[in-house]
Amino acid sequence: MKKYIYLDNAATTALDAEVLSAMLPYLTEHYGNPSSSYALGREAKAAIEANRKSVALALGVSPLNIYFTSGGTESNNTAIACAVNELGCKHIITSSIEHHAVLNTVKRYCERSAIDCTILTPSTQGFLNLQELEDKLIEKNKEGIKCLVSLMHANNEIGVLLDIEKVGNLCEKYNAIFHSDCVQTIGHLEMDLKKYKLHFASASGHKFHGPKGTGILYASERVKLSPLIIGGGQERQSRAGTENVAGIVGFGKALELSMRNHPEESTYIRSLNELMRNALSQSIPDVSFNSPIDGLYTVLSVNFLNAMPGSLLLAHLDRAGICASGGSACSSGSDGGSHVINALGLSSSGSTVRFSFSKLTSATDVDEAVRALSAIFQSTVPVA
Amino acid sequence: MKKYIYLDNAATTALDAEVLSAMLPYLTEHYGNPSSSYALGREAKAAIEANRKSVALALGVSPLNIYFTSGGTESNNTAIACAVNELGCKHIITSSIEHHAVLNTVKRYCERSAIDCTILTPSTQGFLNLQELEDKLIEKNKEGIKCLVSLMHANNEIGVLLDIEKVGNLCEKYNAIFHSDCVQTIGHLEMDLKKYKLHFASASGHKFHGPKGTGILYASERVKLSPLIIGGGQERQSRAGTENVAGIVGFGKALELSMRNHPEESTYIRSLNELMRNALSQSIPDVSFNSPIDGLYTVLSVNFLNAMPGSLLLAHLDRAGICASGGSACSSGSDGGSHVINALGLSSSGSTVRFSFSKLTSATDVDEAVRALSAIFQSTVPVA
Ligand SMILES: Cc1ncc(COP(=O)(O)O)c(C=O)c1O
Ligand SMILES: Cc1ncc(COP(=O)(O)O)c(C=O)c1O
Repeated sequence: MKKYIYLDNAATTALDAEVLSAMLPYLTEHYGNPSSSYALGREAKAAIEANRKSVALALGVSPLNIYFTSGGTESNNTAIACAVNELGCKHIITSSIEHHAVLNTVKRYCERSAIDCTILTPSTQGFLNLQELEDKLIEKNKEGIKCLVSLMHANNEIGVLLDIEKVGNLCEKYNAIFHSDCVQTIGHLEMDLKKYKLHFASASGHKFHGPKGTGILYASERVKLSPLIIGGGQERQSRAGTENVAGIVGFGKALELSMRNHPEESTYIRSLNELMRNALSQSIPDVSFNSPIDGLYTVLSVNFLNAMPGSLLLAHLDRAGICASGGSACSSGSDGGSHVINALGLSSSGSTVRFSFSKLTSATDVDEAVRALSAIFQSTVPVA
Repeated sequence: MKKYIYLDNAATTALDAEVLSAMLPYLTEHYGNPSSSYALGREAKAAIEANRKSVALALGVSPLNIYFTSGGTESNNTAIACAVNELGCKHIITSSIEHHAVLNTVKRYCERSAIDCTILTPSTQGFLNLQELEDKLIEKNKEGIKCLVSLMHANNEIGVLLDIEKVGNLCEKYNAIFHSDCVQTIGHLEMDLKKYKLHFASASGHKFHGPKGTGILYASERVKLSPLIIGGGQERQSRAGTENVAGIVGFGKALELSMRNHPEESTYIRSLNELMRNALSQSIPDVSFNSPIDGLYTVLSVNFLNAMPGSLLLAHLDRAGICASGGSACSSGSDGGSHVINALGLSSSGSTVRFSFSKLTSATDVDEAVRALSAIFQSTVPVA
């Protein structure tokens, strides 16, 4: 019997059994320090480099562009720090629906140093006005102020997608540095990073069945990455600290599997997403969707109009064994609610629940979740 | 048959099988995001908090003082950044034999901001002159300049120990912030951090049979820790990023085991260290020791006078299946040699090899290593 119905794959995913198998040798006999010059160390080093190659291949770039980190948050922090401290960016353009790993980092630089920022507000649907972005880039370019543009590829709460190709072109045109938080898309979309004119892109292993505490930062050859975490010469002097070898191997394997099985898995997951959208529309009154139809296929953000408060709804779901969230994981337990839902002006009109799917989700999971929601709204399930 | 004779436990250690067992549930069914409010998330959160408690208990402090990080390097960076950016330290006192995670970080602050530093040079034996430290503290205190003192508890290359109790008292007397890189001692010595008047202490899991990519920063309640890695509210707003739950569980279990078995294991490891010291003295001419007799029991740094270059000696050892290093792992492959051995003025007098031991080392390992060294010095083993 399955204990939980897990519909929160945008928060984190279960580690793939095949990924764990790939990691285990590095959690047992292959324990050498990759910086050590003897055979046991060289083996560990070789494992890292093999995985750097396979990650690079999956993303259409060179292994020299890939740096392993402890997660998406560290990758985002590193890119922003490098742009500000090394690449001369004095103005940061970002949006109000970025992940806190970007938004709070940008805010900190703006409070603490001679950096200004522009925080773009998207439409209620989550779309950015790219004309507004271009106008700001033109203005700053005229003033001779170099910009960092940090905009996420897919929003983790509603799944709205950015046209990173267009934004990349704009950034190139106005000589801006472009970072994209691709934590929700790398591992889920076919990414040809070379094509996008990005300077930096971040990814996180645990979002696509890899281990928690692993990530990469892609850095284009047009920038020299400087370390956020300083010390030994690991990662070509760009990220110090003894490498999490098993984690790196897990990240590499998870990305390899995701990309190998991408066509079938994405089709399957998209069908679950549609199934849930349709089933909810049919069985729950006053339901609406914050996720655009053509957004990221893993995420479905749902608005229940005039329902009970979101936290109560989530508590009901929890009691029914259904894992879903009010926003990002970081805000699911906090009282202020989701900064994304607030920024989109959706917070007053009902309670929001994000359902998110993976290859491990079944149609039965979706059916049961919809049934549970119907029951909750018919007030048949009391909360203790 | 054993493939390698592993005598580089100060570089990294094999993961304890019991530690891996403790981690596995968090690499399989317990995959929830600790920030998620439903049961699967709360389980993960509970695991983190249970391990924070057990780590705190092992170190004689409160769980509120313990922050999980991605390793010793990140912990060191976080402490120094906090002291400089938040606690008003304008002068840093450190030593020339610190790990690069401290030394390079301090140098960076001194190059980039209005921070000065004093780099103390120890004696050839690695001992710091605490009078020199006090004089500097007095001087800076008179000038009204707040100091950060960052000095490692045990040096990773030669095992010399700092009297952190004394240094803590000096720091308190002159109102300085005291950070100690305890990466080589936490997990190896009984530590009662409360006693030492430290503000910060760093540890790394993979040095005592825990997983790579895990660490802690201890921060006393006298300081408010601010994040180096910014984003979500994890670790009480002090270290953002989805937690490496399995890694945290592994860190906690490894420390628990180390401390539980400390009396016997340390006695055993100390006996291996003495065995090697005596056997080398007897069988190799012109051998001397950089490690003090009463230094850290896990490390034996050996000087072979007028021998072949260190890198050649290590290559010979590697061919014989013996894992040992020229200095720290980070410098074992690099040409400049060890900055510690250089700073101690030992680099011209022969080649240096660090042997370091763990509970998994056997007396036979030591015997075989000594035999192999004898053979190498009798030039019976050619190098390809
Ligand atoms: C004394 C000392 N400090 C810091 C570190 C860095 O720790 P980590 O490799 O976990 O980043 C090490 C070992 O690499 C060390 O020996
Ligand atoms: C869009 C986005 N960016 C960044 C992160 C942070 O990644 P990590 O948890 O690996 O630090 C997440 C998820 O937590 C995310 O969804």
